[in-house]
Amino acid sequence: MCRWMAWFGQPVLIEDVLFKTPHGIVDQSLHSRMGAETTNGDGFGLGWYGTGEGPGVYHSVEPAWGDANLRELAAHIESPLFLTHVRAAIGSPVQQTNCHPFRHGKWLFVHNGYIADLRVLRRDLMLAIEPALFADVHGSTDTEVVFHLALTFGLEQDPIGSLERTIGFIEATARRLGVDDPVQGSFGVSDGESLWAVRYATNGKPRSLFASADPESIRHLHPENPTFQRLSPDDRVIVSEPFSDLPGVWHEIPPSTAVTVRRGGVLEQQPFHPEAASPATATTPSLMPTGR
Amino acid sequence: MCRWMAWFGQPVLIEDVLFKTPHGIVDQSLHSRMGAETTNGDGFGLGWYGTGEGPGVYHSVEPAWGDANLRELAAHIESPLFLTHVRAAIGSPVQQTNCHPFRHGKWLFVHNGYIADLRVLRRDLMLAIEPALFADVHGSTDTEVVFHLALTFGLEQDPIGSLERTIGFIEATARRLGVDDPVQGSFGVSDGESLWAVRYATNGKPRSLFASADPESIRHLHPENPTFQRLSPDDRVIVSEPFSDLPGVWHEIPPSTAVTVRRGGVLEQQPFHPEAASPATATTPSLMPTGR
Amino acid sequence: MCRWMAWFGQPVLIEDVLFKTPHGIVDQSLHSRMGAETTNGDGFGLGWYGTGEGPGVYHSVEPAWGDANLRELAAHIESPLFLTHVRAAIGSPVQQTNCHPFRHGKWLFVHNGYIADLRVLRRDLMLAIEPALFADVHGSTDTEVVFHLALTFGLEQDPIGSLERTIGFIEATARRLGVDDPVQGSFGVSDGESLWAVRYATNGKPRSLFASADPESIRHLHPENPTFQRLSPDDRVIVSEPFSDLPGVWHEIPPSTAVTVRRGGVLEQQPFHPEAASPATATTPSLMPTGR
Amino acid sequence: MCRWMAWFGQPVLIEDVLFKTPHGIVDQSLHSRMGAETTNGDGFGLGWYGTGEGPGVYHSVEPAWGDANLRELAAHIESPLFLTHVRAAIGSPVQQTNCHPFRHGKWLFVHNGYIADLRVLRRDLMLAIEPALFADVHGSTDTEVVFHLALTFGLEQDPIGSLERTIGFIEATARRLGVDDPVQGSFGVSDGESLWAVRYATNGKPRSLFASADPESIRHLHPENPTFQRLSPDDRVIVSEPFSDLPGVWHEIPPSTAVTVRRGGVLEQQPFHPEAASPATATTPSLMPTGR
Repeated sequence: MCRWMAWFGQPVLIEDVLFKTPHGIVDQSLHSRMGAETTNGDGFGLGWYGTGEGPGVYHSVEPAWGDANLRELAAHIESPLFLTHVRAAIGSPVQQTNCHPFRHGKWLFVHNGYIADLRVLRRDLMLAIEPALFADVHGSTDTEVVFHLALTFGLEQDPIGSLERTIGFIEATARRLGVDDPVQGSFGVSDGESLWAVRYATNGKPRSLFASADPESIRHLHPENPTFQRLSPDDRVIVSEPFSDLPGVWHEIPPSTAVTVRRGGVLEQQPFHPEAASPATATTPSLMPTGR
Repeated sequence: MCRWMAWFGQPVLIEDVLFKTPHGIVDQSLHSRMGAETTNGDGFGLGWYGTGEGPGVYHSVEPAWGDANLRELAAHIESPLFLTHVRAAIGSPVQQTNCHPFRHGKWLFVHNGYIADLRVLRRDLMLAIEPALFADVHGSTDTEVVFHLALTFGLEQDPIGSLERTIGFIEATARRLGVDDPVQGSFGVSDGESLWAVRYATNGKPRSLFASADPESIRHLHPENPTFQRLSPDDRVIVSEPFSDLPGVWHEIPPSTAVTVRRGGVLEQQPFHPEAASPATATTPSLMPTGR
Repeated sequence: MCRWMAWFGQPVLIEDVLFKTPHGIVDQSLHSRMGAETTNGDGFGLGWYGTGEGPGVYHSVEPAWGDANLRELAAHIESPLFLTHVRAAIGSPVQQTNCHPFRHGKWLFVHNGYIADLRVLRRDLMLAIEPALFADVHGSTDTEVVFHLALTFGLEQDPIGSLERTIGFIEATARRLGVDDPVQGSFGVSDGESLWAVRYATNGKPRSLFASADPESIRHLHPENPTFQRLSPDDRVIVSEPFSDLPGVWHEIPPSTAVTVRRGGVLEQQPFHPEAASPATATTPSLMPTGR
Repeated sequence: MCRWMAWFGQPVLIEDVLFKTPHGIVDQSLHSRMGAETTNGDGFGLGWYGTGEGPGVYHSVEPAWGDANLRELAAHIESPLFLTHVRAAIGSPVQQTNCHPFRHGKWLFVHNGYIADLRVLRRDLMLAIEPALFADVHGSTDTEVVFHLALTFGLEQDPIGSLERTIGFIEATARRLGVDDPVQGSFGVSDGESLWAVRYATNGKPRSLFASADPESIRHLHPENPTFQRLSPDDRVIVSEPFSDLPGVWHEIPPSTAVTVRRGGVLEQQPFHPEAASPATATTPSLMPTGR
């Protein structure tokens, strides 16, 4: 399990959100207060939109709390939209190719949670990935497989819908192979223009997910943080674990729910229903998942 | 491309062979004299048989020449049979899971060379891997795929034969997918009891491979190295690039040839002929490679 | 702050003590139960006596809990005497040269605790180091300075006495420069023949330190661990934090106390009294600490 | 030995200069054509001025040619003034604190070359560092000591003069301690407003140093590089080894020479004469170098 966070709003120095926030994501890497793992020291990732073409990504196998390069980048890169992720590995190796966010073109993807029994499911899930994308899976996490399945199922055209089909497909595969409760967690996606987040678990009890609510409350909560003092209704923070417990500051996203954040801080909420589906490659017989 | 080396004989401190040999494998990591890449600084691996159950492996993403831990291990671990590998990455990430030797149970596997156009071939090769082994491929190298194919094709029962079937299968797959000259290089395999090595390329011009020949010549060549002074006919070194050019010291293994080294320094040589074959899993219809 | 552990007794596979012990040191790296820091994820070190000349050391900047190489070494190296250390950095960088144990010739040195206000004290302490040893301080920890001071004050002749003089000198320097409560912690030292440990703090309240007491109790406590089943009165474990709370298993070493463990499990205990002293180099005027 | 490079001119994506230039500094990390070491794979550093307060630095122990994060940063950070350095370690450990550029406040410092016999000189040089700066030396390179000596001798007021005093002091110390030819190399310094470079060796034969000369020639040389096509007389590149051998493109800076580059591409050249001097701290008796 892990923690993640996304900022979308006015351009800010990344450190203002990462390091200058008590109980922010870097604090959570060392000791978070909610959820299954309290230490998330198995790697870190930052993906940001700004200068240059497409998003930049920084992946590190060092714990976020002690990574000198991360402090430097955060203090010298400004971005209106970025995602960060701290990792608690459950089985797969600690290596940069296992760090989130994963990227494809202009798309970034993060996940807090797991696909159960990946050893059992991995082959069938990999086989359903669009063949042209198969060799892009460089690491060994469940999340990278989910991301490439979502790309296969149309992420670039319909982020929420593709995730419904992806998770539906994983659940169907799990049923077929006798794996219970296969999907758990929250997912974050962006193309640099919008930000999507999903909270879902097969068993109905997904890990937490929150959106920042009232800028006024946040300003009061962090009088020492100049970025938060400038916070406007146009700015949104999505977090897998809130920075604080104060009422009014964080809006809990309900289970089985997807949200879309658009420029200007607009947040739309919709039900999230996984949908059993065949991969988009279903029309190419030789590439069909073996189970059919 | 890369370089590798194997020792099989009397137990020696690993550093005697790795660090106390001019032009040894660690020197070759910084500047080798033969072959395509002269710097092999993209990771290092050591697999050794000795204390404990099965072989130990040490994988490092630091260049071998500067790895302080490697010097420590080499100076404090004694082994009668070990393989080392220095890597020059061609495309795939520098990470521990991409470092040779790869291991399965008591088996170790190294490779110097490449599978051409892996992006094109990877999916079909991965599909032919025995499903129970599929999730054991943790990295993104061609060699790890070859190793798991060889396990699928019976490596544990018949090392040379399984490699003939594996390479035959890769060549058949490459033909089908329009990839020329798919296999290049030398391979090293051990189970702790014997050592096998293969020199082969589809195009008939494989990378070099040598076996130590006359202990007497080696003793003369390295008067300063106490291990080499104790060298007996029972000891064998296999190298992808010889430590020196002196005649009589190294025996060149011919192209399309496999050698078996048994305890006591016995070296048997045999022709190596790839053989078009279906995976051992051919009896399980749902697991057939898609191309059939 | 940190945690450390030493084994001295029958030769054991290192993993039996490191990984096969519930609440062992690797567990403590992720979440220890006592002391100031509960996560010790800023590097790991192992120093062991066995094959080869002098002790070997393995230093890693990865958290111990996720370090694949550490698991390999621990499973394939046997040793009758070894020290391990998990680090929680307080200010100094996470790098191999800051990982314990520190080594000089056949000597190993670990420390759990700190020298207060090192920025203020560092120069004066470094100046008191024997000039010939000055360039051997490769990292930036307080502990490496303490170790080289101890070597300067005669560690190799009189381990406990040299530490009394070293800590006395640090306390005198701290008084002169206005630093309160400069010394905190426990120290472990070995030359491969004996093992010494000190528990001391200037303020009288040192971090914890324990010695294994009754082998019978430990055998009962760890029925699943074959090494512990073979535990005899000849075996001693020294730990900064005990693996369990069971009465009779661990003997608490009192504050201001030094212990010596000799072959055969003999444990001698003596009071530890820092002693204001000049460096051994005091006879070489040009090398005197400037403050005198 | 090492290689370094500085850009000062119009803001550019760092990758345009680092990665899109044949024989650029990253190519030189793998195989440079001039100088003592042809592989510079022992770490990398980038220091840049741009967004945020003061320069950012990125230090990596991976070889520059294979560092995925470096490619990301270079592709997504724009800067009008940056220095990069590839390292070939000669003795000191490969760790981030040994990577150039070193930083103090808004100042960056790089060096290609060495201080001879650092083991003999280190203590006396460290002692001459302004005591308040002593604890800022975190690593174990000669360059970091030179930088902190230069700060002691007034770098922030007079960069060239302070380097003359620093090198004069090192040469005097070396004479006293019997070390020949102590200083070798080229140095680069910046405060974000100007760029200074020095080429000097005690023995009169310093490592090479070049400044870009005629933008027109560079444009012709790199027709494929859009940044170089936009090159104007306002842009300057300083390199320890030129990217190409074409006449007219690179101006060799003579031995014993310092250059100052100011905004607008103005390059001033002056003789560089080391000057025997006492540290600036000479007025504080207790902080005098011991050798006096």
